[in-house]
Amino acid sequence: MNAANDKAVVLLSGGLDSATTLAIAVQQGFQCYTLALDYGQRHRSELTAATQISRLLGAFEHKQVKLDLRTIGGSALTAEIDVPDADRDSQDIPVTYVPARNSIMLSLALGYAEVLSAGSIFIGVTAVDYSGYPDCRPEFITAFEALAQVATKAAVQGQQLAVHTPLINLSKAEIILQGMSLGVDYAETISCYQADANGLACGQCDSCVIRQQGFVAAGQGDPTRYQI
Amino acid sequence: MNAANDKAVVLLSGGLDSATTLAIAVQQGFQCYTLALDYGQRHRSELTAATQISRLLGAFEHKQVKLDLRTIGGSALTAEIDVPDADRDSQDIPVTYVPARNSIMLSLALGYAEVLSAGSIFIGVTAVDYSGYPDCRPEFITAFEALAQVATKAAVQGQQLAVHTPLINLSKAEIILQGMSLGVDYAETISCYQADANGLACGQCDSCVIRQQGFVAAGQGDPTRYQI
Repeated sequence: MNAANDKAVVLLSGGLDSATTLAIAVQQGFQCYTLALDYGQRHRSELTAATQISRLLGAFEHKQVKLDLRTIGGSALTAEIDVPDADRDSQDIPVTYVPARNSIMLSLALGYAEVLSAGSIFIGVTAVDYSGYPDCRPEFITAFEALAQVATKAAVQGQQLAVHTPLINLSKAEIILQGMSLGVDYAETISCYQADANGLACGQCDSCVIRQQGFVAAGQGDPTRYQI
Repeated sequence: MNAANDKAVVLLSGGLDSATTLAIAVQQGFQCYTLALDYGQRHRSELTAATQISRLLGAFEHKQVKLDLRTIGGSALTAEIDVPDADRDSQDIPVTYVPARNSIMLSLALGYAEVLSAGSIFIGVTAVDYSGYPDCRPEFITAFEALAQVATKAAVQGQQLAVHTPLINLSKAEIILQGMSLGVDYAETISCYQADANGLACGQCDSCVIRQQGFVAAGQGDPTRYQI
């Protein structure tokens, strides 16, 4: 694909998946506008990581939007609920799920894409090695694309909008190998749900464990900086 | 319909339409949780009006979520673009359109509904006497309902979510008559895009003119407090 001069909004959390997604969008030739959401998450250092990663990977511009989801509550990532250790055998959606987070983030990206006259949004969801969040599944992305076709002034005027999910069918190991081939420095990314102020990871939560297993499966050393 | 004890999230802007929508939801027996969005709008007094209306009409609880859409810009309601006088003959979508606003607001309502285990969202969109915004049309609401069926943990677990749009086929005059029959005091509502700090309306913008014409068509005195 040659997307030279095409603009794309890239959702960037500061984690491993979204950093890889940005690297892919840049490599495809998109002029990338990265967007991070400050939703009151415990792991504040991921926002600093997002700003840094945007610059390192050659995005055109980075913006951080503040939306305090603590007002509505309901997640271990925002409310006063403890982040649990990983339980990879559970079939339940964990308490780290943030209600409607990807709907909210994609809606913001949709509005920003319209302001920029951008025809593409990139989001680093994956439905392989993940926590079972409903808004990471292909059927969710398809439904959002359908919404986008009727939601905006740009759409009414004929502007198409594509939601790109380059990771959706990749394992964590495949994501890591692809990112490394594109020069992503994973030491700069923060996946941990309870990273400390210095960006050091706990090594115990679901997100940390999935990431660790990914580096092992990829046969790569884990560059993550841990608290212990 | 008897919705006794059923919870509903009601999007409340402080304007005429959303106040009427709340009155309808209360009358249908829903336990109403009103949600206002502080998106950096010029017309700050509508947020005060929303809080007041929620109490007057008997909502169970009111929350105001802050999301600064000025970060992404693109609207006369948030950015430094002048609000134009009404041009009711124009076929264009006006500059007061806020990119993806209803997608964002419904996504927030969806998250809040999930936290509350509520099966209903009410939004006061109307596709009759309106400004031509794409995200007020029935096809947009239908697409959002389809998204909601795959977007949340609640949906995966079988909780249905309905988006109620009781005004969508009503003229402004019909909305006013219905609201008056339910005891809505429209003097408390603010529709103006550039209401002053005291809540006084300009009388010139698109929203003011549509509202004025509604009171005339309904054969009712206009209780709106104007600046001049």
